[in-house]
Amino acid sequence: MDTRLLSYKVDCADPSIDLMPFAIVDRRLLVIDQRHLPAAVLDFDATIFDDLLLSIEDMVVRGAPTIGLVAAWGLALEVERLAKAYLPDGPALFLEMLHVRADRLKDTRPTAVNLMHDVDMVVNGVRDFVESGGDRVDADNVSRLAFEIAEDLTSANLDSNKRMAEHARDLVPDGARILTHCNAGALAAGGFGTALGVIKQAALDGKRPQVWVDETRPRNQGARLTMFELMRDGIDCTLIADNMAACLMAQGQIDLIITGADRIAANGDVANKIGTYGLACLASVHGIPFYVAAPLSTFDLSLDDGAMIPIEHRNIQELIDPEDAMAAPSHARAYNPAFDVTPSRLISGIICDKGVLRPDYQVSITQAFKLAKGDA
Amino acid sequence: MDTRLLSYKVDCADPSIDLMPFAIVDRRLLVIDQRHLPAAVLDFDATIFDDLLLSIEDMVVRGAPTIGLVAAWGLALEVERLAKAYLPDGPALFLEMLHVRADRLKDTRPTAVNLMHDVDMVVNGVRDFVESGGDRVDADNVSRLAFEIAEDLTSANLDSNKRMAEHARDLVPDGARILTHCNAGALAAGGFGTALGVIKQAALDGKRPQVWVDETRPRNQGARLTMFELMRDGIDCTLIADNMAACLMAQGQIDLIITGADRIAANGDVANKIGTYGLACLASVHGIPFYVAAPLSTFDLSLDDGAMIPIEHRNIQELIDPEDAMAAPSHARAYNPAFDVTPSRLISGIICDKGVLRPDYQVSITQAFKLAKGDA
Repeated sequence: MDTRLLSYKVDCADPSIDLMPFAIVDRRLLVIDQRHLPAAVLDFDATIFDDLLLSIEDMVVRGAPTIGLVAAWGLALEVERLAKAYLPDGPALFLEMLHVRADRLKDTRPTAVNLMHDVDMVVNGVRDFVESGGDRVDADNVSRLAFEIAEDLTSANLDSNKRMAEHARDLVPDGARILTHCNAGALAAGGFGTALGVIKQAALDGKRPQVWVDETRPRNQGARLTMFELMRDGIDCTLIADNMAACLMAQGQIDLIITGADRIAANGDVANKIGTYGLACLASVHGIPFYVAAPLSTFDLSLDDGAMIPIEHRNIQELIDPEDAMAAPSHARAYNPAFDVTPSRLISGIICDKGVLRPDYQVSITQAFKLAKGDA
Repeated sequence: MDTRLLSYKVDCADPSIDLMPFAIVDRRLLVIDQRHLPAAVLDFDATIFDDLLLSIEDMVVRGAPTIGLVAAWGLALEVERLAKAYLPDGPALFLEMLHVRADRLKDTRPTAVNLMHDVDMVVNGVRDFVESGGDRVDADNVSRLAFEIAEDLTSANLDSNKRMAEHARDLVPDGARILTHCNAGALAAGGFGTALGVIKQAALDGKRPQVWVDETRPRNQGARLTMFELMRDGIDCTLIADNMAACLMAQGQIDLIITGADRIAANGDVANKIGTYGLACLASVHGIPFYVAAPLSTFDLSLDDGAMIPIEHRNIQELIDPEDAMAAPSHARAYNPAFDVTPSRLISGIICDKGVLRPDYQVSITQAFKLAKGDA
């Protein structure tokens, strides 16, 4: 098992070390419990499969790429356990149990496609190896393969985040005033960040970006996580309530908007944190460029457009917290979609690991995937 | 002193009695402490002048009309004290002290114009009477006059809210799905409500409106107060985070939007709770009618347009509450304007006590004020 991933405890304390949302330490999958940030940096042990499920369902970890990678590592640990228990009796029951676990993992959160992608990578890799039926198919080698896949996904993701930041360099002028929504940083994106990666690169390039950070109701990922990351990295950032963005746009205080994405359809429609669509409408009204940053693993070419993306609805207690004095009356009705869909016509460019895609997205997305196949 | 105003304790408990945000009980000015709603219905005694100031500054009471009326009643109580102390020595010192108090009151919150209007009504009425210098000018009669003015303002405001609801009847179809922002109900508007008054009238008319209620960050007046009022009145209501409104509009789930106003310039530009401007932009993008309900006392004809309306910025701790586990890192920078300005071109109609004003607002507002003068 690979232990190159640094402990996040070190990361959080020392800004010179890149922040990672998870780590493999002594054969345990440890994740930063993002529910407690920024007040406290706490471990959550997701080694046991039920705890892994809980860590995704209850948003201990969140952010499309991080969810996918944590699922891949957790599934690799499960492969190790299943292989020891079942492989000695042949592949059938082992593969059946593996598929049950994979399906259960994919059901935890329906919108982000990276979860499906990364789980499939582990399952398909392991299945192909097992079904090849060679002499080398034993519990040790199957486990090693699963961990290698998780490790490769993690490294490829980090590389891809850094490539996105490179590709987006021309989009960010000196002193740019950038609005971002939710958290598309290291915590969400398996290190470095997608949207925040672009901003961090601008800071590394000495451009001194000024970031407006949407609070991002109801779970406040902007206030809690993006502010935490940007302050840790010494980047100029100011928190606003979500409803203040329009007013700042009207005042000419926002030069560009960058968000992440949870799933992108073949035509470029983007599912992302609820509130993204409204920002894109407002950006269009005010003539402000609106960019989305996401690796190709976030694209789902099986869906023609955004209307086909399943949108998760979360517990309304997120809006009606009975322990919060500022909350609504108990028994209030509420509506709590976690994501919305932004039609591609409102998006100025999609920053992916193959470059900055521009309209017509149907065409540019197809080209990017051809390019990716060519590289592979 | 008038004691016709019912105690709000009775009001809150019994939905058949109209909700009032303040009451005069045994020569004390009692207000519902809106900071604690809906968790608890608590008294705040604003009889002492410093407590009156605090009640407005700290948003124990809020909402443009309620602030104005509470200030008028509180100032009437202060007139009584000042008249007893100073009038026996002649009018000069009494009037000087009265103006000092009035200025201090007007400084508590800069954006809502009703505060300035209602305080001026008391001060000017008392000053004119005192300066008339007749035999009847004594502490008792001066006090009585001040209370009469406060009472007249209160009754006129309630009448005006009910007239607005009458005028708006044609705007609300059967089963209308209405979005509202912040709280422009009985609590904000000195009884019955402005925007919520229109909705309550629709419910009274059997139209069964369905209300989407914006949470309204950072102080959650929608979640706490509007949900409280609508649930108390048995009106169908569903809470959303502010950033969800755009998505509902795209889904065709919102038929019209109604908000209140804190100040309206001569050209129809509207200052209201932060987030109103964004909603108006989004309504325009989606072809949804956007109405503002406010009495003529909310209009400030001395201001040509919205750019001249002073916007209050509030303590950033409202966004970075150190006692809230869901909040931003301590020492985070934040930006916290309480209001924004919606240009009149985005407003479908302004519902006032003289009718529903339509563009060109410069013209229709002037006509409404002429009509009001004719009535007086």
